[in-house]
Amino acid sequence: MSTVTTVERLGNHVGETVTLRGWVYARTSKGKLHFVQLRDGTGYVQCVVFKRNVSEELFDAVAGCGQESSVELTGEVKADERAPGGYEVGVSEGRVLQAVSEYPITPKEHGADFLLSRRHLWLRSKRQWAILRIRDAVITALRGFFDERGFICVDSPMFTPAACEGTSTLFEVDYFDDEKAFLTQSGQLYAEASALAFGKVYCFGPTFRAEKSKTRRHLTEFWMLEPEVAFADLDDVMQLAEDMLVHVVKEVLRRRQPELAALERDVSKLECITGGFPRITYEEASKILLEHPDSEFVAGDDLGAPDETILSEMHEQPVMITRYPKNVKAFYMKEDPEDPTKVLCVDVIGPEGVGEIIGGSQREENLETLLASIAAHELPQEEFDWYLDLRRFGSAPHSGFGLGLERTVGWICGIEHIREASPYPRMMTRIRP
Amino acid sequence: MSTVTTVERLGNHVGETVTLRGWVYARTSKGKLHFVQLRDGTGYVQCVVFKRNVSEELFDAVAGCGQESSVELTGEVKADERAPGGYEVGVSEGRVLQAVSEYPITPKEHGADFLLSRRHLWLRSKRQWAILRIRDAVITALRGFFDERGFICVDSPMFTPAACEGTSTLFEVDYFDDEKAFLTQSGQLYAEASALAFGKVYCFGPTFRAEKSKTRRHLTEFWMLEPEVAFADLDDVMQLAEDMLVHVVKEVLRRRQPELAALERDVSKLECITGGFPRITYEEASKILLEHPDSEFVAGDDLGAPDETILSEMHEQPVMITRYPKNVKAFYMKEDPEDPTKVLCVDVIGPEGVGEIIGGSQREENLETLLASIAAHELPQEEFDWYLDLRRFGSAPHSGFGLGLERTVGWICGIEHIREASPYPRMMTRIRP
Repeated sequence: MSTVTTVERLGNHVGETVTLRGWVYARTSKGKLHFVQLRDGTGYVQCVVFKRNVSEELFDAVAGCGQESSVELTGEVKADERAPGGYEVGVSEGRVLQAVSEYPITPKEHGADFLLSRRHLWLRSKRQWAILRIRDAVITALRGFFDERGFICVDSPMFTPAACEGTSTLFEVDYFDDEKAFLTQSGQLYAEASALAFGKVYCFGPTFRAEKSKTRRHLTEFWMLEPEVAFADLDDVMQLAEDMLVHVVKEVLRRRQPELAALERDVSKLECITGGFPRITYEEASKILLEHPDSEFVAGDDLGAPDETILSEMHEQPVMITRYPKNVKAFYMKEDPEDPTKVLCVDVIGPEGVGEIIGGSQREENLETLLASIAAHELPQEEFDWYLDLRRFGSAPHSGFGLGLERTVGWICGIEHIREASPYPRMMTRIRP
Repeated sequence: MSTVTTVERLGNHVGETVTLRGWVYARTSKGKLHFVQLRDGTGYVQCVVFKRNVSEELFDAVAGCGQESSVELTGEVKADERAPGGYEVGVSEGRVLQAVSEYPITPKEHGADFLLSRRHLWLRSKRQWAILRIRDAVITALRGFFDERGFICVDSPMFTPAACEGTSTLFEVDYFDDEKAFLTQSGQLYAEASALAFGKVYCFGPTFRAEKSKTRRHLTEFWMLEPEVAFADLDDVMQLAEDMLVHVVKEVLRRRQPELAALERDVSKLECITGGFPRITYEEASKILLEHPDSEFVAGDDLGAPDETILSEMHEQPVMITRYPKNVKAFYMKEDPEDPTKVLCVDVIGPEGVGEIIGGSQREENLETLLASIAAHELPQEEFDWYLDLRRFGSAPHSGFGLGLERTVGWICGIEHIREASPYPRMMTRIRP
C-alpha cells in the first residue's frame, strides 16, 4: 500500500506514489482526462486522472464527482512549476467515497446571509480556509510568545456575578434556583488576582458583549487574550504588546504564505511590522484630530472609529495612544501621577483602518484612589469587594492589556468584516448553525 | 542597579546580587535576624535579613511584615543544599511596598467554603500555586502536541441554538429580541464540520453543564479539548489519545517537579504512564464487573463511577473501554459493523479512581443510519439539519474525542476534588468571586 500523506507534505514525496484523502474542490474534464482540484484541509493540488492509467470504474466514478465529493486518490507526485503549489499528482488508483452533485455553495457570488447560514460548509471554501488557518497560526504564535516568557495560563471564568465595565451590554444566564449569572465581558479583574498569585499570567478565552451593534467590527462572542504582569508599569506592557504583535506577524509570514497568497494579501503591509511603533499621547492625538479637516472629534471625548482611522492612516505600523482622560476610560486604570485628569492607559490602533486591537493600562493599586474611582463611575462597590482585596493584601504595581483575537486576525488577513475571522460567528441576529 | 530576576531563575545568578519582587509567604524573626519566605509566583525562596547588613529602616519595616506583605528585596544569591529549592538570598537592600497584618488565609486549616469565597487570595497558597502551574503545563503540552502534528485550532462557538446530548442540562441565555441561546455542552458537532474543512482540527474552550450535581467530579463550567480527524477510524483516535496522555504526563514530569513535590505527589504513579494502555471491550468489562463482589453493575447499563473505579484499580495506566451498547451512548456514534447493538466508541478511565477523562468515538457518516439514530434518541431532527449536511456533501469517515481538562489536571495532581483544578471554579452554589 502506498504512503498516505497530505497536500502540505507532497514536497517530501516527489517521484513517489502516495495516497491523498480529501474532497473535489473543482473538476474539469476533457475527453480522456479529468483534472481534479483536490482539497484535503492542508492545501490544494491538481490530480490528473488519465483514462489510460486508471480502471474504467474509477474513471467513470470521477466523471460523476461534483464539487465536495469525497475521494481517495493514489498516484505519483510530480514537481511542476506551473502547478499552483508546485506539485501535481498523476492518478493510478483510487475510489470515490461519496459523489456529490448539488453542493449549495458554488464558485459564483453568494450573499452574506446565504453563506453565514451555511457556515459549516462555507468553511471549506479557499478564502475561509486561508483566514482560519491564519487564525490558528495567530493563536499558536500568541500562546508560544507568552509560554516562552514564563507566563502562566490562568483562565478567567465565563460565569461572573457582575460587570467589569458597566452592565448595559451583559448577557444574562439563568443559573440555579432563580439566581442570575452574567457572561464575562473581560477576564481582566480575575487576571489581576492571578497575576498577584503567579507573577506573569495570561487568560485567553471567549468573551461576550450584548451590544446592539451590527457593524463590521462587532461580534457578540469573541476571543480575547489578556496578559497581566505583577510589578510591571505601563511602559513595560506597551513594550510587551509591541514585541507580541511583531512576533505574531512574523510567525504568520513564516508559516502561512500560501494562505496569504490565497487572500491576495499585500504582504508588504505585514513585512513592515518590525517594531518601533509610533507612540503618541491622547493630547497629541487630540491636537492632530482637531486640525484635521475630516475629523469631527470633540476635545475631551473618547476617540471614535473615524478618528482612529485618521490616526492609523498616518503610519505603516500600529499606533500606540496613551494617557486618555480619566472619565472616558474604565475605573481600574491608574491615575497619571503627572496629571490626575488622565489615566496610564494605552490603546493600540491597527494599521489600514482596522481600529483598536489592544487596550491596556497600568492598574490603580491604591485602595483609596480605586474606591473613589468606583464611586465616580457609579459602580456598586459591594460587587468589587473581592477585587478590592487585591489592594488590601499585598498591593503592588501591575499592568496588562487585552487583545481582540478576531480583530487582529482580520487585520493580518486584510479582510473587511471580522465575522470571517471567527469559525462560527455570533452576531445580533445570528446564532446558527 | 542590580538585576531584577525571579525565584525560578536564581540558579543562573549564584554569587551575584539580584532583586526579587514578591510577597512574604511566611516570616520568622530571631533577635537580629528575619527569615522571610518570599514567593513571587515562580517559586519560593528564603531571604535572610540580618540587622548588620541592612538599614535600620528596612530591618524595622520587615519586622512589621505579616503574611502577603508586598516587598522588593535585593541581596546575594547563595547556593545552599539545605534550603528548599537549593538557594538562599542574603538581603542587603530593599523596601516594603505594603505591610499586611491581617491576611485572612493563615497556615491553619480553613473550611472549603471559606477558601472558595476567597479564591482570589487562596490562589496564592502553595498548594493552589502548584496545581494551577501544573494546569498551565498540561494546557501547553496539549496544544503543543496537536500543533506539532499539524492540527488546526478551530474554536467551536459558546452560543448554540440546540443541545448536543439532550436538553436537561443546558444553561439558557437571554439573547436579543426574546430569542434564547444555549451555552455549549460540547464543541464536537462543530468540530466535525471543521474537520471536514481542515482535515485535522481541535477546539479547546469552556463548556457548560447545568447538572444539579454536587460531587467532587462536577463543575458547571470546565474546559474541554476536542480533537476531530477526517478519515480516521476509532483505532486511529484511540492511539492519538494514548500518545497525547503519555506526552502530557511526560511534559508535566519534565517541567513541574517542584510543584509535584509541593503536592507530595507520588510521581511513580505518573512515571509508569508510558503507553500500551490496556484496552477492553464493554462486554469484557461487563464480565469482570458481574463477577466482582463489590459491583452493583447491571448488564447492558452504562458504567457508573464505582464500576469505573473497580476497572481502573486493576491497572497502573489509563484503561480504554470500547464498544458500548448503542442505547447508552450519544446519537452521533457510528454503529459497530460487527454488532449493530454496539457503537464504535471509547471511554478512557484514568487510574487511581479518577473516573472518565476522555470520551470518544468514530462518528456515524451514513445519512440514513444517523437519521434513524436521531429518531431513536427522540431528538428534534430540524435542529440537526446543518449537521446532517456533513453527511450529504462529501461524507467521509471521521473520529474524535473530548478530554476534560480539570479532570485530567486533578488526576495528574492527585487531588480529590476537581474544583481545585479550576482557577475560579463554578459550581451549583457558587459563581463568586
